[in-house]
Order: sequence, then C-alpha cells, then structure tokens
Amino acid sequence: MNPKAAIIVIGDEILSGLTPDLNSGWLAKQLFDLGVFANIIITIPDNREVIIDWVVKLSKEYDFVFTTGGIGPTHDDVTRESMAKAFNHRFVLHPEAEKYLRDFYKDRITESRLSMAYLPEGVKLIRNPISAAPGFIIENVFVFPGIPELLKLMFSQIIENFNYSQFHIRLIKTNLPESVYAKELFLTAEKYPSVIIGSYPKIYDTTCKTEIVLKSKRESDLQDAFEHVESLVQKLQTETTQ
Amino acid sequence: MNPKAAIIVIGDEILSGLTPDLNSGWLAKQLFDLGVFANIIITIPDNREVIIDWVVKLSKEYDFVFTTGGIGPTHDDVTRESMAKAFNHRFVLHPEAEKYLRDFYKDRITESRLSMAYLPEGVKLIRNPISAAPGFIIENVFVFPGIPELLKLMFSQIIENFNYSQFHIRLIKTNLPESVYAKELFLTAEKYPSVIIGSYPKIYDTTCKTEIVLKSKRESDLQDAFEHVESLVQKLQTETTQ
Repeated sequence: MNPKAAIIVIGDEILSGLTPDLNSGWLAKQLFDLGVFANIIITIPDNREVIIDWVVKLSKEYDFVFTTGGIGPTHDDVTRESMAKAFNHRFVLHPEAEKYLRDFYKDRITESRLSMAYLPEGVKLIRNPISAAPGFIIENVFVFPGIPELLKLMFSQIIENFNYSQFHIRLIKTNLPESVYAKELFLTAEKYPSVIIGSYPKIYDTTCKTEIVLKSKRESDLQDAFEHVESLVQKLQTETTQ
Repeated sequence: MNPKAAIIVIGDEILSGLTPDLNSGWLAKQLFDLGVFANIIITIPDNREVIIDWVVKLSKEYDFVFTTGGIGPTHDDVTRESMAKAFNHRFVLHPEAEKYLRDFYKDRITESRLSMAYLPEGVKLIRNPISAAPGFIIENVFVFPGIPELLKLMFSQIIENFNYSQFHIRLIKTNLPESVYAKELFLTAEKYPSVIIGSYPKIYDTTCKTEIVLKSKRESDLQDAFEHVESLVQKLQTETTQ
C-alpha cells in the first residue's frame, strides 16, 4: 500500500485570493512521483485553533501531513506555536535553531529574527539555506514555509524519507469530445481494475480537446489498457472524420 | 457579518499534481470582492463517499459552498450523483437540462451527452454556454465544472445572489525584511482591532521584499492604520539606509 498524505496550506492571503497557491500542486506532484498520494489538500486561515484542529485530525487520518506557511517572524505567523499545542510539546527557544539563526545573522540578529527559533521542543529541523527560518518535522507532520522558492529548496532535504514504489503513467491526447468515448472508457475501466483511468477535458484547444490519463503500479496491465484505449481513440477519430 | 464560504475542488488530477488548480484561487478572489469570505478550500478525489461526506459537513458549517469539477460525462464524473445523495434528492433526468442538451446538440445528441442532464431532482440550473453541461444550485451549494474557462463564464450568472458590503484594502510594498517591522506591526494590529493586517514575504525581489496588506470594512480605521504603517515603514527604511 502506498502511503496517503494530506497537504495543509496555511494563509489568509490564499483564502482571500490575494496570493496564488503555488505550493500545493507542486507538492502533490512531488509526492505522487515518490509514491505518496495526497488524498486531501486543504487551505485554512492563520488561526491557531483552526490550525490545531486540522493538524490533529489529519495527522491521525493520514500517514504524512505536509504544511506550508506561517513560520515567519510576524504576528500572523502562528504555525510554529500551533504545532507545539497540537502535539503537546512545549514551545521553546530551540537551541539548534537559535545557533543556526545567530550564525546566519551574526550581529544583525534581532528579537524578531530570533522569534523564528521558537519551536515545539525537540523537533528535527529542516534547514532553510536562504532566509534561515527553519522548517521542522513533528511526529508525522512536515512543516514548511509558504514561499514557493523556499519550499522547493527545503523539500529536497526530506525526500530520502519517502521511497515508495512509483506509479506508471500513460497519457493520450485527443481532439475527440469526452462524450464520444465516455461509455467505452467506462467499460475499459471495468475491464482493468488495477488501472486508474481519468478523462480531463481541455477547453477548445484545436489540437487537444481532452486528455485521457491511465495510471497503475502494474506496468503490464497499464500497457494493455493503454493499447486498448489508444486503438479505441484512433477508431473513433477515423469514424468522426469520415 | 459577512457570509462565510467553503470551496471544494473535486478531482484526482489535482491531487496527483497532474493538473494545476486554477479555480479555487480565482473563485476565492471573486468571492472576497463580493464580501463573501472563503474560510476553507479543500481538494478531494473523484470518490462518491468522500464527496458526500464533505458536502454534507461543509454545507452545514458554512453559509455557501462552491464546488468545481466532476460534472462531465465520463465514469469519473461522480459529482452530480453525489450531490443528489448528499441532500436526499432523487437522481433523475432533469427535464430542463435534457431540453437544453437536446437543443444544443440536436442530432448529435448521444447517451453519453445526455448523461450530463442526470441531476438531483428539482435543482436550479446554471447555464453553460459552451459545452452545455449545466452547473446547478442545490440547497446552499453551487456546483460548477472544473474547466477554468467554463467556471468563469458560469460564475458570472450567479453573482447577483451575493451582494455583501465589501472590504476595503490597502497595500504597502517595501524592501524591508519582515523581521525589521514585525514587532511594530504587531502593536499596530493590536491598536486597530477592526483592521486585519497581514505581512507576506516575497523571495528576494530587489524592489519588494515584503507586502503588507491591510483590510477592513471601516474605511476610516483602515486609513488611520494605513498611515500609521506607512510612516513606520518609511522611518525604518530611512534608518536602514543610513
């Protein structure tokens, strides 16, 4: 069984549509490629109680939880503190994070910058090579900053924790509308239960109206289903152009 | 009180990172501008039980729910059926939707295309001027397709349902790092409780390191807080460049 994950995006600015969420889709793709399936992505406000409730709930229900956002130095950055409460850790000046920030900022260290070293006691850090505010791992929860460039740099440090067999994928692009092949595709999905088949319409692109995505852990089943759908699509295309 | 909303994005392709979610951020922004606050955005798979659970839960907890995805003609489009189950409506060939699809497709109507007219009994339709698959309104839930272009066209048909007083917003861009003003900004937020103040770092853009966003329904409070923060930022910028 591949592990299942939840992604929690934390930030008022996403919920008001002011800032696009560039993180969750990227993270979902990375996890998928590692064989970890994001089964839920949830965006919530910078609110302690809300964060605590969701982290407690999802960390129980899923193998892993990944959060982004809210670990900076301003008053609306409440993720660090909320994680401590969620798992009943003390909220303390984390010695390793403190050293890290002091080494990074040297004589430019301030109370505000140091606030980023207040973390749940005993957590393992995820290093931040750019602005020094560390992410961390608490229980099965991986806590990242909300800045997409930082997330990308920092995620690479933890991928060795995830080494699960990967899904194989096949993609078929066609200019047929979905309704033409819907029934046959349904029958194909029934015929190959180990293959997950999805159909995704694109708006009137002249070269590609729909994409059919097939995925499976069984390469041979996938290849059979792929060939089946491909010949179906070719047949239908020939028919519709005649 | 402004109404609160939940956005539910339905689609395996989003959770696997194959397709970017272009809908929820756009929708959140439209709602915000109408005075409706998205308090949660959740992405879930094309799975009947999961859809039903979340729709039932969130439609009770929020004033409005908006869903995107899963109303096309293929086997993985299970949103229409799930909405019927969630609200104990019968799942029927909706006469108005049927007429609409037949008029649209004329002699090109097929069983698959007609499947998009199977809807919870009695729901109000949201017209789809491009591919005819209608959205619909059931209780306090607004059901849209997942194709971003369609969502945009169809959302405009329902905005007259939402007419709430709008938030005023002020934005301050600065090249100061957050940690320099974090403490003062916290004090400002305490001083102006009717103003929501957020601080959002951008990665090392040379002209703008952070954005400070102030929002309030009270224009005068907002202006006071804005002037306060602006003079603070100017003072700090002068200090740091000396």
